[in-house]
Amino acid sequence: MNTVIETILNHRSIRAFKDMPITTEQLDSIIKSGIAASSSSLLQVVSIIRVTDKEKRQKLAELSGNQQYVAQTAEFLVFCIDYQRHYEMNPNVRPEFMELTLIGAVDSGIMAQNCLLAAESMGLGGVYIGGLRNSPKQVDELLGLPKYSAVLFGMCLGHPDQDPQLKPRLGADVIVHENTYQPLNKEAVAEYDQTMIEYYQSRSSNTKQQGWSEQITAKLSNESRPFMLGYLNDKGLAEK
Amino acid sequence: MNTVIETILNHRSIRAFKDMPITTEQLDSIIKSGIAASSSSLLQVVSIIRVTDKEKRQKLAELSGNQQYVAQTAEFLVFCIDYQRHYEMNPNVRPEFMELTLIGAVDSGIMAQNCLLAAESMGLGGVYIGGLRNSPKQVDELLGLPKYSAVLFGMCLGHPDQDPQLKPRLGADVIVHENTYQPLNKEAVAEYDQTMIEYYQSRSSNTKQQGWSEQITAKLSNESRPFMLGYLNDKGLAEK
Repeated sequence: MNTVIETILNHRSIRAFKDMPITTEQLDSIIKSGIAASSSSLLQVVSIIRVTDKEKRQKLAELSGNQQYVAQTAEFLVFCIDYQRHYEMNPNVRPEFMELTLIGAVDSGIMAQNCLLAAESMGLGGVYIGGLRNSPKQVDELLGLPKYSAVLFGMCLGHPDQDPQLKPRLGADVIVHENTYQPLNKEAVAEYDQTMIEYYQSRSSNTKQQGWSEQITAKLSNESRPFMLGYLNDKGLAEK
Repeated sequence: MNTVIETILNHRSIRAFKDMPITTEQLDSIIKSGIAASSSSLLQVVSIIRVTDKEKRQKLAELSGNQQYVAQTAEFLVFCIDYQRHYEMNPNVRPEFMELTLIGAVDSGIMAQNCLLAAESMGLGGVYIGGLRNSPKQVDELLGLPKYSAVLFGMCLGHPDQDPQLKPRLGADVIVHENTYQPLNKEAVAEYDQTMIEYYQSRSSNTKQQGWSEQITAKLSNESRPFMLGYLNDKGLAEK
């Protein structure tokens, strides 16, 4: 196993950070790593808003559901689908297709993961903040996002002040199919549920008694941010 | 600079492969690396279809716009948004929200990038194949994707038989904004256009005379796979 794969397999989301800055050189490496990522048809449809303003950070922490580490961490990056860039180059572009929103979302994930791994490789840690989508219009306003730029998620980066366990995942026998989609292996999920119950019970805080499947299907039986389609449509995205 | 960041910065998309297999151990590392990625709320909404069947590979190469490396490469992985898994656990889940499609797309990008970097770290190479979205219904049928599983993109992985130049990207001065979205720096884009013209002229094949902005905005002035919203809606996704 090489150091790249070691870094990847050692990933834990970090939500507690020391009060120490990330150096300019480190941030440069993180950003360059993001920019080096694959880009669909070289469209380059992602923008990153680096939030250094303390009041904006505090507001974003609240908008994300009171995740205080958003305010406290050394660096906070907001990843946005960005077709405004192309619109400013040529007002004839047509960002309204769902296809382009998909590209924006996939390419943001690819770019952000490069940033996170670069940070982790330097001993830093971080966590994705999907909670920004609790209040996308307020985030837009706070960051001045124009018409064809839409917020997707944030990323906290900083010096870890915790050392959490690896979180168990579904196995390859559930995630990977060969040639044809296979129906769910319910025995594998039952085993995973048991693993997750043991994992949650071993944690010092935020212990849970539920297995994964019960917890996740309960969550998915509710509405999931039912305003997101309207938000994207208001931004001129995902309409067609 | 450490080896993780070196691997990230050295990324080139590889489209020509030697006729050599990827070992089982290498593939295991690639898949485990994908599974170790962050997953929004631990929903675990990505499935990978590993296509080993030669006829299916040939068909996928055609469906992607005759990209023959899809048929020829050692491994071909298809990344899918997958809420079918959760539906089979509990038929009360509600996958119809745009929010969940966004999560699927972002998390697929994150997972796939871990796979690609793991491969690149072992001297392998690869390329994302968005061309599968040319014909999503046919891909569905070929791979037996059920109702709540939707194809997003493929990935070729194998032993590189080419050593292309690094492809220049927009700089951090265009991609990164501080605190507030900044209007496009048109001078920076003009410089980048010139860099891209020089890059295309220096390539031994597929040379182009256009700058990036002209090429990309021409592409975006057309319809972009206008059937994708309908496809997702047929799969019970992105409706609300």
